[in-house]
Amino acid sequence: MSVRYRLQCPADAIEARAQALAVEQSIEMPIEAVRDARVRAEIVGEVLAIEPSPEAADRFDVVLALAVETTGDEPGQLLNVVFGNCSLQPDVELVDVELPAAMLAKLPGPRFGIEGWRRALAGGAPPHDDTDAASPVAGAGRDAEARPLSCTALKPQGLDALALADLAYVFARSGIDVIKDDHGIADQASAPFAQRVPLVQRAIERANREKCSAGGALSGHRSIYAPTLSGGPRRLAAQLAIARDEGVGALLCCPMIVGVPAFTELVRAEAEVPLLAHPALAGNVRIAPPLLLGKLFRLFGADATIFPNWGGRFRHSRSDCLAIARRAREALGTHRPTLPVPAGGLRVDRVDEIVRAYGPDTMLLIGGDLLRAGDALAARAAEFAQRVARALHPARAADVGTEAVDG
Amino acid sequence: MSVRYRLQCPADAIEARAQALAVEQSIEMPIEAVRDARVRAEIVGEVLAIEPSPEAADRFDVVLALAVETTGDEPGQLLNVVFGNCSLQPDVELVDVELPAAMLAKLPGPRFGIEGWRRALAGGAPPHDDTDAASPVAGAGRDAEARPLSCTALKPQGLDALALADLAYVFARSGIDVIKDDHGIADQASAPFAQRVPLVQRAIERANREKCSAGGALSGHRSIYAPTLSGGPRRLAAQLAIARDEGVGALLCCPMIVGVPAFTELVRAEAEVPLLAHPALAGNVRIAPPLLLGKLFRLFGADATIFPNWGGRFRHSRSDCLAIARRAREALGTHRPTLPVPAGGLRVDRVDEIVRAYGPDTMLLIGGDLLRAGDALAARAAEFAQRVARALHPARAADVGTEAVDG
Repeated sequence: MSVRYRLQCPADAIEARAQALAVEQSIEMPIEAVRDARVRAEIVGEVLAIEPSPEAADRFDVVLALAVETTGDEPGQLLNVVFGNCSLQPDVELVDVELPAAMLAKLPGPRFGIEGWRRALAGGAPPHDDTDAASPVAGAGRDAEARPLSCTALKPQGLDALALADLAYVFARSGIDVIKDDHGIADQASAPFAQRVPLVQRAIERANREKCSAGGALSGHRSIYAPTLSGGPRRLAAQLAIARDEGVGALLCCPMIVGVPAFTELVRAEAEVPLLAHPALAGNVRIAPPLLLGKLFRLFGADATIFPNWGGRFRHSRSDCLAIARRAREALGTHRPTLPVPAGGLRVDRVDEIVRAYGPDTMLLIGGDLLRAGDALAARAAEFAQRVARALHPARAADVGTEAVDG
Repeated sequence: MSVRYRLQCPADAIEARAQALAVEQSIEMPIEAVRDARVRAEIVGEVLAIEPSPEAADRFDVVLALAVETTGDEPGQLLNVVFGNCSLQPDVELVDVELPAAMLAKLPGPRFGIEGWRRALAGGAPPHDDTDAASPVAGAGRDAEARPLSCTALKPQGLDALALADLAYVFARSGIDVIKDDHGIADQASAPFAQRVPLVQRAIERANREKCSAGGALSGHRSIYAPTLSGGPRRLAAQLAIARDEGVGALLCCPMIVGVPAFTELVRAEAEVPLLAHPALAGNVRIAPPLLLGKLFRLFGADATIFPNWGGRFRHSRSDCLAIARRAREALGTHRPTLPVPAGGLRVDRVDEIVRAYGPDTMLLIGGDLLRAGDALAARAAEFAQRVARALHPARAADVGTEAVDG
């Protein structure tokens, strides 16, 4: 596989530095002390290219060839090989990883992908047979209309489960598509998972039924709930069982906190619904955000990936954000595309701008700006849902999300 | 709990920035939109102090009070609360976390601690009854002599299990205390865990028997093996079972790769032997190394913590390294101390300097510098073991590790 790093290094030292990095990320010992011929030929990392940056004399892109077999086909070990030790070296940033087709095929990728979100929202059981992962579905017939999706968060943490369920009801009645737990809501005493998830799920189901029986613009609109999974394997397994029993439509998880191996082997394998990955703790590990939040989270099994949009509370650039979305959706072996979810301090008045930038296969996540409306929460939530749904089709203005409901 | 961050921020904006951070790490929504009185009073983060840095006009330490209840007493969620979202904000570094005694007591901490390493090396079963964790054992009677310990790594990855077992035999015969897998050796095809662990363990047991029957300086010296645990919960559980069946004396694990919740809930709970934490991927997450590798890894259950020493292949400062060791061993509720393990490109000729800096409750890890010796590997390994053992007691020179064995 080919791995691209960005190094801060004086020009007269870059060859030695690149060589040292190739050793650090493969055998971690002096090359001259390696006696095994196969290891020398097949395992030791190799410097494929050293490319000076046009921007600075002491910056270089270094491309290494690292042996796929050192990853043992395991996602955590893949991270270890490409960035385990050199994460401790502040002059190194990981920019890109190109995997050969055989290795790509061994990584799980999204189980449901963007189509899976549309099907879950349309009320159909998403296809979760891994055997059909081999046929790309990005262009296949769509069960739900190809419009942008809306998402909001239940918050603040500290509310009890009943209060969170009331909030979820308002959001669902307002026509928001995906209602997720705030990522900070885990399994705390104020609203334990086992108590919160049934209450919120039932509130959303009630709202869905009411939208149907009320007729009108939101008739047939289905909201789904994505509670936060957290903790070690036992806790995760218990939470997965509750989510399954309650019939929740999606799940939220922080791969860098629960750990990529648990995310892939346990959560991705056992969740029967689309997974929303949250970037908590994925911040400045000096892995380029398009690679980590776009490509790698997708390969590890995220059906949707949340990331901080430009112009909010975080400093990600517009080009980085669009690159995350591109890598989440571009052709990648036979893997399904992952739904990009820009977030992080967005306001409802930016919906059009953001949807135009990302296109229809996108889910916008707005939390605080809805709650800021106070008594007008339901109206603001409905405005958000409606703006998202009509963003690329102004003619739909009258069709979707025009009803506001009192909380 | 009180959490200290270092912020890069102009002086005229620091109050607003500190307040925004308190919100980001607690409720993640506009404070004015929080209607619940309990949440406002007990959950919203509070700015306790803003301290200008003596070094730069645009640098400040900000101390926040965050609610313990938001952590749900779960180690992953603790990381989420103190650094989940703000890891995505490059102006923030996490410097310290002070937990109240009740919260400290709810975190697992080392199950065996430094005494556990000494007992494991002396051949005694380490105490693994969590009920005695309440009585600090740092000063209790010691089963093994209080000397510094030696550690080396089986490498390079890519060798087959037999070759690794041969290497382990040489190290064990040379008197090295702990022989660990290179952290890059996981469960790859070249030396799968299920095949490698029995072979290496038996090679070390044979060496231990031979040291006994040969009499002499190493009679009674016991080496122990620490294989690398990796992967998701199922793989981890299978590997733990093999390690237990084979009677390995210790285990190595990378908490930031397997994930802190799995490390604590599964590995720490089910390993019946001392745990060696490896810092892979723990690099530049902008959590101060003494906090992450010293205090937090200890609270999560590491019995020993590996970190890059100054003057090797990494750039950690001497004061950071000594601070990691201090935090690993200092008084911390009723938790056992964790053994500091300086590593990362150390050479045998630095043993005295390093042991003098860290004192006897330390394990030195040297890998590449032993393998560099080629045909003289056994002699170099014996020299290393001997230098470590006698470092603080020159009179012991004749007692320990004076035998070299051919590989």
